[in-house]
Amino acid sequence: MEGSSEVNIPPLPSACLDRAGTSSRKVEGKHGTYTGRDIVPMWIAGMDFEAPQPVIEAVVERAKHGIYGYTDAPSGLSDLAVDRLQTIYQSAEPPQRSWLHWIPGLIGGLHYAVRATCDDQAERVAVLTPIYPPFLGSVRSNGATLVQVPLREGGATDSSRQIRFVIDWVLLERELAHPRTRLLHFCNPHNPAGRCWSVEELERVCRMCVANDVSICSDEVWGEMPLSRVAPFTSLLSFLPHTLDGQPAGVEGLRERLMVLISPSKCFNVASLDLALAVVPDDTLRRKYRASGADSAEVTPFGYVAAQAAYGHPDSEAWRQRLISYLQANRDFAFETLTSARGVRATCPEASYLMWIEVPDLGVPAVEFFEQHGVGLTGAVDFGGAANCCRLNFACSRATLKLALDRMLRAMAPSSTL
Amino acid sequence: MEGSSEVNIPPLPSACLDRAGTSSRKVEGKHGTYTGRDIVPMWIAGMDFEAPQPVIEAVVERAKHGIYGYTDAPSGLSDLAVDRLQTIYQSAEPPQRSWLHWIPGLIGGLHYAVRATCDDQAERVAVLTPIYPPFLGSVRSNGATLVQVPLREGGATDSSRQIRFVIDWVLLERELAHPRTRLLHFCNPHNPAGRCWSVEELERVCRMCVANDVSICSDEVWGEMPLSRVAPFTSLLSFLPHTLDGQPAGVEGLRERLMVLISPSKCFNVASLDLALAVVPDDTLRRKYRASGADSAEVTPFGYVAAQAAYGHPDSEAWRQRLISYLQANRDFAFETLTSARGVRATCPEASYLMWIEVPDLGVPAVEFFEQHGVGLTGAVDFGGAANCCRLNFACSRATLKLALDRMLRAMAPSSTL
Repeated sequence: MEGSSEVNIPPLPSACLDRAGTSSRKVEGKHGTYTGRDIVPMWIAGMDFEAPQPVIEAVVERAKHGIYGYTDAPSGLSDLAVDRLQTIYQSAEPPQRSWLHWIPGLIGGLHYAVRATCDDQAERVAVLTPIYPPFLGSVRSNGATLVQVPLREGGATDSSRQIRFVIDWVLLERELAHPRTRLLHFCNPHNPAGRCWSVEELERVCRMCVANDVSICSDEVWGEMPLSRVAPFTSLLSFLPHTLDGQPAGVEGLRERLMVLISPSKCFNVASLDLALAVVPDDTLRRKYRASGADSAEVTPFGYVAAQAAYGHPDSEAWRQRLISYLQANRDFAFETLTSARGVRATCPEASYLMWIEVPDLGVPAVEFFEQHGVGLTGAVDFGGAANCCRLNFACSRATLKLALDRMLRAMAPSSTL
Repeated sequence: MEGSSEVNIPPLPSACLDRAGTSSRKVEGKHGTYTGRDIVPMWIAGMDFEAPQPVIEAVVERAKHGIYGYTDAPSGLSDLAVDRLQTIYQSAEPPQRSWLHWIPGLIGGLHYAVRATCDDQAERVAVLTPIYPPFLGSVRSNGATLVQVPLREGGATDSSRQIRFVIDWVLLERELAHPRTRLLHFCNPHNPAGRCWSVEELERVCRMCVANDVSICSDEVWGEMPLSRVAPFTSLLSFLPHTLDGQPAGVEGLRERLMVLISPSKCFNVASLDLALAVVPDDTLRRKYRASGADSAEVTPFGYVAAQAAYGHPDSEAWRQRLISYLQANRDFAFETLTSARGVRATCPEASYLMWIEVPDLGVPAVEFFEQHGVGLTGAVDFGGAANCCRLNFACSRATLKLALDRMLRAMAPSSTL
């Protein structure tokens, strides 16, 4: 634990939905799954906070234009993206504009990577589980063979009640060495494990993939929301071969095999604007990747202008810093509150606003149990996880979070006092 | 010809880009392909007109909301869609809400249909050519076998300079009868042929498909823009089996094989908002169709609210009627102007704002020739058409259209006076 729930609550990054109070402000959509029922929605990976003001202004401005035909990336956006790949993602090779391929969202991006690397059903894709379900779906629905490589617990933690996931190197090596394995479908920072993989872990992953001629698709969408000073985010782009003090550095062979996916979607709460960026340094691999996404929707003009405002405006960056502070405090509050209950363990995520929770056997899957008690979480089974686990989204006001946690504790009280 | 260029020009449906004049109003994007060059863009299938006011207001309102997370279709939209399927599309069976599957645009929808019906490379998809290139791409990039069934010229026309495409029934029958043909990928009204297929043609297509156990995916996106009183748009939904005066009517067996794609994208100029609707009456086929689109982007909240305003607001309908009148007059003007040049023939489209043009041999492909002379058209080769053909988009102000046509005539003048 790096913080404490005792500190004052930081200021909200921006206006926020008030689920705990009497606000009548509503957002339609998937958050509305529980409309008309007294269930606090803490599941889907969107935030209750308004986007940064420059993003809203840009989107409203484009909306007022009135012509909503096909559109291309605005001039200047690619340069902003290249800048970001150098700063936040620390690309070890100067990113070229030619590397960039704008796509309408992350999920399609995962599918295209499978299609770009696998030709038939015998070809295998390795995935570290539990993982965000579209990773699994992208393998299954494109006719490749899915191989789950379960994460294991390990490493030092501040509390026996903290879950910390690490890679099972023996299992991963065995799978990557399989002659038909073509792709490691990788999530960094990892959803739902909440790990910012360390430099050592990442370098080992890269070397293992290269040694076995396996490509890597690295979904780094959560890299914009690091929550830990001791476990910073590191992009796989930083392992591209380069020269350091006259010596070769990075991982030789990674360039030809690397696809990195980024997006402002999660950090700036613009997931529905359908914009992500595939960064593929190698020409041949990028051509295959592009061809694999021929069915994709248009990137919307709103996605483009939102990305421009998110990446390019200093107020958006200030907003992101406030967001990170707010989420750090919410994370610590949620972790301490939940793990005060008997038998409850949880991750203390190093990035993202998603906490993985393990509860004692409650008779029914955890997600059903809490839903019956007024809290809507995400079940673990679709992630390749166990039924006594679930995922909590803490990107909401403290009041909403407290309401949900109170209900969860109260619901578990009988079993925790047994 | 049903009209004449001599009539007065109808009022614009709404504010319009002014490409011919001195307006500095710009739209970024694909229309900007020729930015900085003196080339009038008449190619991409978007319009120069602003969307109807209710659509703009709805999009701006949603933009102001400020939270752009995941979203579902707003309540009420499905009912509006069902209404529309009954009115404009004249569904012979009352459409059920369960038939509807919102997708982020038409192009993906074409791909999903191929995946839903074809399992391997030996399975064949028939396509009537020339056709909108994504039809061809959707077959190729999903690993099925593409079979082009060329349209031929036929039927009565008002002028020897008018191109009128009809189906070559012998070729179509032969291809549908092939034991590995799984899908007819159909466009109705047809882009770029501009045909609203007649009731007789459509019924024959349906019966031929059913007799040969071939599914039909019917892209009906242009059905909202009929331009002809004598050749109205008829949806394949109107051939679903039903009872008429106590007698069975429609095409038995069509229900199990039909996928219809509609969207407000073209008619209301909201293509970049990424929304289309797949209408699949049969449960089994719909399940396959849905599963085939697992990689799709989110439908954007802007797409949903735009569809709601387009389908539900009377001002949008009034705008659509003004649009149709304006396009009819532009079509007639373009047809008469172009075919006044020696050796030039063209379609007189019954729907859409797209005209197919055939010119004498100009030494280079027609699209290159006109681009060199300051008009950006769409080349025919990607449609499965000949190099001396091209496609003109006449959804622009009369001034812009006149500028483009003047340039085309002037460019051809040497050859037409030979």
